[in-house]
Amino acid sequence: MLQFEFYNPVQIVFGEGQIAKLATLVPEKARVLVLYGGGSIKKNGTYTEVMDVLKNHSVAEFSGIEANPTYETMMKAVAQIKAEKIDFLLAVGGGSVIDGTKFAAAAAVYEGDPWEIFTTGGQYIKAALPLGAVLTLPATGSEMNNGSVITRSETKTKLPFMNRHVFPQFAVLDPTKTYSLPARQIANGAVDAFVHVVEQYLTYPANAPVQDRFAESLLQTLIEVGPQALATPHDYTVRSNLMWAATMALNGLIGAGVPQDWATHLLGHELTALYNIDHAQTLAIILPSMLNVRRAAKREKLLQYADRVWGIKEGSEDARIDAAIAKTRDFFEAMGVKTRMRDYGLEVSAINAVLEQLKAHGMVALGERGDVDLAISKLVLEGSY
Amino acid sequence: MLQFEFYNPVQIVFGEGQIAKLATLVPEKARVLVLYGGGSIKKNGTYTEVMDVLKNHSVAEFSGIEANPTYETMMKAVAQIKAEKIDFLLAVGGGSVIDGTKFAAAAAVYEGDPWEIFTTGGQYIKAALPLGAVLTLPATGSEMNNGSVITRSETKTKLPFMNRHVFPQFAVLDPTKTYSLPARQIANGAVDAFVHVVEQYLTYPANAPVQDRFAESLLQTLIEVGPQALATPHDYTVRSNLMWAATMALNGLIGAGVPQDWATHLLGHELTALYNIDHAQTLAIILPSMLNVRRAAKREKLLQYADRVWGIKEGSEDARIDAAIAKTRDFFEAMGVKTRMRDYGLEVSAINAVLEQLKAHGMVALGERGDVDLAISKLVLEGSY
Repeated sequence: MLQFEFYNPVQIVFGEGQIAKLATLVPEKARVLVLYGGGSIKKNGTYTEVMDVLKNHSVAEFSGIEANPTYETMMKAVAQIKAEKIDFLLAVGGGSVIDGTKFAAAAAVYEGDPWEIFTTGGQYIKAALPLGAVLTLPATGSEMNNGSVITRSETKTKLPFMNRHVFPQFAVLDPTKTYSLPARQIANGAVDAFVHVVEQYLTYPANAPVQDRFAESLLQTLIEVGPQALATPHDYTVRSNLMWAATMALNGLIGAGVPQDWATHLLGHELTALYNIDHAQTLAIILPSMLNVRRAAKREKLLQYADRVWGIKEGSEDARIDAAIAKTRDFFEAMGVKTRMRDYGLEVSAINAVLEQLKAHGMVALGERGDVDLAISKLVLEGSY
Repeated sequence: MLQFEFYNPVQIVFGEGQIAKLATLVPEKARVLVLYGGGSIKKNGTYTEVMDVLKNHSVAEFSGIEANPTYETMMKAVAQIKAEKIDFLLAVGGGSVIDGTKFAAAAAVYEGDPWEIFTTGGQYIKAALPLGAVLTLPATGSEMNNGSVITRSETKTKLPFMNRHVFPQFAVLDPTKTYSLPARQIANGAVDAFVHVVEQYLTYPANAPVQDRFAESLLQTLIEVGPQALATPHDYTVRSNLMWAATMALNGLIGAGVPQDWATHLLGHELTALYNIDHAQTLAIILPSMLNVRRAAKREKLLQYADRVWGIKEGSEDARIDAAIAKTRDFFEAMGVKTRMRDYGLEVSAINAVLEQLKAHGMVALGERGDVDLAISKLVLEGSY
């Protein structure tokens, strides 16, 4: 096992009806800003429920956070926070709303140009406004971590930051709030969570059996409940397990003490920035090809994945790896998420366009050993077409 | 899945050499009290290492915390804390030292009689001194939770409390610090962690596949690394996985959203209080009989345990349950922990003596459904003899 530090102070409040606890979770005297997205929380009743619970608090609101939250939009929230002397932020939505809220929490009290937060990965953040989250979409894990990804629209740049000051103080997870989500969002969420686990698991052996088995636990659960969540949207058990698995997939626990990859995410980010393809769709496009191209570097863990996650025990090593990659692709397709660039109408010229962006962004030494250069990324993209 | 809240703000600092980080983990200006046990940390060098790292801090010390820490001893620490205006506690040792330190942290600032902390389960604790831990013995999980168990010697009463103010701020886990432990303590630690998992897992199905699989992950890992830890004491990989599994076994995660039992612990506590038998030994005595007596109430989970943890797939349901219980007993015995009361020289009269104590302490409705009355406890104890 590698050396590690693990710290995660987010208080999880899980279950049907738990939004009522906002009455005490949000500090009594706070000037609260409720941040949300495009209005789906108004259609499904979550907005009314939250506002009703906070009726004795001082509450303002900020809406219109995009699916890939932009720097430009979130700077408008920062201006409102300063103008109205807001001192507590409540994100109500999915990962995009929570990511955007984390940035606003830090930017509102940042000394200097807030864009620096991204160019320095968040390392100079010394404080942030306190924030909480009400999760409506199981997917990114943002509700229980300290990471955020924001897009600058003018340059089509998607950049992350992390800092311990932006952990939510609490996250309310009510599985019933996911019942009204479109199938596409549930499918994307399950794929996103699945690939989060894979990025922290499918690397090379690090003698970390607890982390390996926890990762396999989440993959097995997502494979089970993902299709059920599409088939029976109002099944509380299914939605609760999808929600908890997605949260556990990226809260730092399974990645503690083990190598991590993230090359699939970084290639995927360029596809989203260039062609506005959903984040999870880009992961479904890239991952099967990434595993195929990097089968030598990931050999031992691919065989373990084939055996323990998919129950593949017969055939040569390469046949088992092929079968595990095929099962992975089939799972994404069964969730309704297409797995090839051409499925999304992209021309073959997209391969070079993505490579140019990777080069421009310095993404030339990716993966768990830093050896995924542009030549390897080219093979991955060609296999993804 | 049941409703739950999960909160665990302990910063874990894991790996060889990480004690060096105490220099910054312990606040610079603090008046520190280092608390420890019987002096084994002096023999193995941990004491010198800790004191050397803290050489620029203001440091006092308190030693002599027992294997089952007593109220009487810890009240002496409280007196020293008050007299010397200590404002940070650093526990260096195993679960007993950390448990004792948690009590001292709360008692030092408690308004009223500190014994109330136990009679009220810790619910009226409004503050505690900040504390950190350097773990030298993987076993109880106290380094990453907010629980503590203290014994009042005069009445032979072993009582727990929990409160969020006594979470350690950090816990340093250096697996090499366990190399010099006697085999008995390593064996006890593995058994203790194993039974912690079982108490949160072997109840009734609650549609919580992530929690179930995480629990099974820990059991499988303990079964693997427990005997290896005895056979090759200086194997870093083995000791690191034993340490991390034991910490994860009781940090609130696998018990979130599922029923919990704890009857084995409560019967075991009485055996320790009456006959001074090691905590883990009492668990090894009670658990196999508890599972056997309660096989109807735990049927589905016992079958799942047999299948997924022990790979038992053949035979009738009762035969599989019998085999799983036998494997559990064999595991404890292979660790060198005897599993019957008579192995520890107890007379058969001990059964009634324990029952009297259970009755006196109101332990008459135990288990995940509260239906383990004195009649059932009697059957369990008879089966444990």
